[in-house]
Amino acid sequence: MRTLAWVDGAVELIDQTKLPQETEVLRIQTVPDLVAAIERLSVRGAPALGVAGGYGVALAAAASDPATDSDGFEAAVRSLRQARPTAVNLARMVDRVAAVARRDASRAIAEAEHIAEEELAASTAMGERGADLARELVASLPGRDAEAMRVMTICNTGGLATVERGTALAVIQTLHERGELAEALPLETRPLLQGGRLTTWELQRMGAPHRLLVDSAGPFLLARGAADLVVIGADRVAANGDTANKIGSFSLALGARHAGVP
Amino acid sequence: MRTLAWVDGAVELIDQTKLPQETEVLRIQTVPDLVAAIERLSVRGAPALGVAGGYGVALAAAASDPATDSDGFEAAVRSLRQARPTAVNLARMVDRVAAVARRDASRAIAEAEHIAEEELAASTAMGERGADLARELVASLPGRDAEAMRVMTICNTGGLATVERGTALAVIQTLHERGELAEALPLETRPLLQGGRLTTWELQRMGAPHRLLVDSAGPFLLARGAADLVVIGADRVAANGDTANKIGSFSLALGARHAGVP
Repeated sequence: MRTLAWVDGAVELIDQTKLPQETEVLRIQTVPDLVAAIERLSVRGAPALGVAGGYGVALAAAASDPATDSDGFEAAVRSLRQARPTAVNLARMVDRVAAVARRDASRAIAEAEHIAEEELAASTAMGERGADLARELVASLPGRDAEAMRVMTICNTGGLATVERGTALAVIQTLHERGELAEALPLETRPLLQGGRLTTWELQRMGAPHRLLVDSAGPFLLARGAADLVVIGADRVAANGDTANKIGSFSLALGARHAGVP
Repeated sequence: MRTLAWVDGAVELIDQTKLPQETEVLRIQTVPDLVAAIERLSVRGAPALGVAGGYGVALAAAASDPATDSDGFEAAVRSLRQARPTAVNLARMVDRVAAVARRDASRAIAEAEHIAEEELAASTAMGERGADLARELVASLPGRDAEAMRVMTICNTGGLATVERGTALAVIQTLHERGELAEALPLETRPLLQGGRLTTWELQRMGAPHRLLVDSAGPFLLARGAADLVVIGADRVAANGDTANKIGSFSLALGARHAGVP
C-alpha cells in the first residue's frame, strides 16, 4: 500500500493523525498546506518526511519558478526545511530537489519521484536482509524457533513512515510473507502512540498476528521469554554506529541485552 | 491529608477515578457499594485496599450481625475478599476484622480503625527511614548532592494508596519536608496513568517540584544522570526478598542498575 504519492500535480498522503479511526487521504496542493501537515504530524517518519519534502519543492517550483521568482521559491524552500527541525531527512531531501529545481524547475518532480523510488527500493531490500538476519540470529539461539518468530518493536516504522513497506516493520512484514512470523509485539509508544495507533493498523492490514503492549511491559516480557527478537528503526545512524531514535528505544535495548534477545 | 476514613457509620474516600479533574469524596454505606468502588478502582493501592476491606467488614457486621445472620455476614465477607483477587492486603485485612466480628460484631469498627492507625504509623516510619537511607546512599555517590535530590518514582504510592502520606511517596514527601528534595520525577504509569493522574496531584498538593515523564523515558534519563535515586513501592515483598509491583518497575530497575543509581 502506497501511503504517500504525487498524483496529478499534488501530494496525496494518508492523514496519520486520523488513524486508526479513519483512513483519510489528504490532497495537498500548496507548500503552506504541506508545512502545516508536517507540523501537525499528518505525515511523519524520517523517510516519509524526506519524500514529502521533495514533493514540496516540486509544489514550490510550480508556484514560483526559481528562474523568475527566486525570492518566492527560496522562501518556500526555507519553510519546508524548517517544518520539522529535528528531521534530518526532510532538510536533506528538500536541499537535493531544490538544487535540481534551481537549474531547471521542470525537473523538480522527477527528482522527487526518484527519492520516493529510492526509499521504496531501500525498504524492500531492508525487509529482505533484515528477515534473513532475523532467521540466522534466532536459529543460533537455543530453544528458539526460527520458523515461528515472536518479534517486538516500538514506534511506527512501516509504510506510513516511508512510502511503502517500511524499515523495521518491513522486516516483520517480510517474515510474515515468508510464513516465519508467529507474532508481532508492538509497543504503544507514548506520548503520541505511534505504535498503538499506526503500527497495529498496518499489522492488521497485512493480516499479521499481533498483541499491543504498554511500553514498560517490553523489558519485562523479554525477560520472561515472550519474544525472540527486537527490531526497531532509527531516525539517524551516525558514521560511528551511534543511533538516534524514539524515546523507549533505550529501555528496550537494555531489556534485550538483559534477556539475551538479539 | 486523610484519603480514606470511617465517618459517622460510613466509609468516606476520595474517588481516584475522578482525579485529577475532580476531588470528589464518596460516602459508602453498604458492602455492595464498597465492592463496586474497589472493582472500578475508586480506591486502590495495597494498604488502602486493606483498610477499606476492614471498614467493609464493619459495614457488613452492622448490616448482618454474624451472631444472628451468619449467612448474610459471611456472604458479604466473601464479596469483599473477592472484589480484587490480586490484592493480598484486602483479603488479609478482611479476614482479620471478620475474625473479631464473629466473636463480637460491635468490635469490628475498632479493629478496622486499628488497621488504619497501623498503616499511618507504618507510612510515617517508612518515610522517615527511607529519607534517612536516601540521604546516606546519595551522599556516598560522587558528584551527587544529598541536599538537593532528584528522585524518580512510578505508579502512585502516596496518601491515596494508603490512608495518608504513603510508602515510596512518603519518602519523597519527607525529603521535601526536610528541604532535601530538588525535584520528583514521577512516571505516568500506563495503562491506567496512576503516576500522571494521582502522583502529580499529590505532589502538587504538597508543593513539591516535579516533572511528569512517559514511562519509557525513565531508563534513558537515568542514564543521562537526571536523577539521584529511584524509590518505588511494592504490592508485596516475599520472605526471600522477591517483590511484586506495577508493570514498569522492572525496566526502571534495569535502568537504575545500568546507570549506577540506587
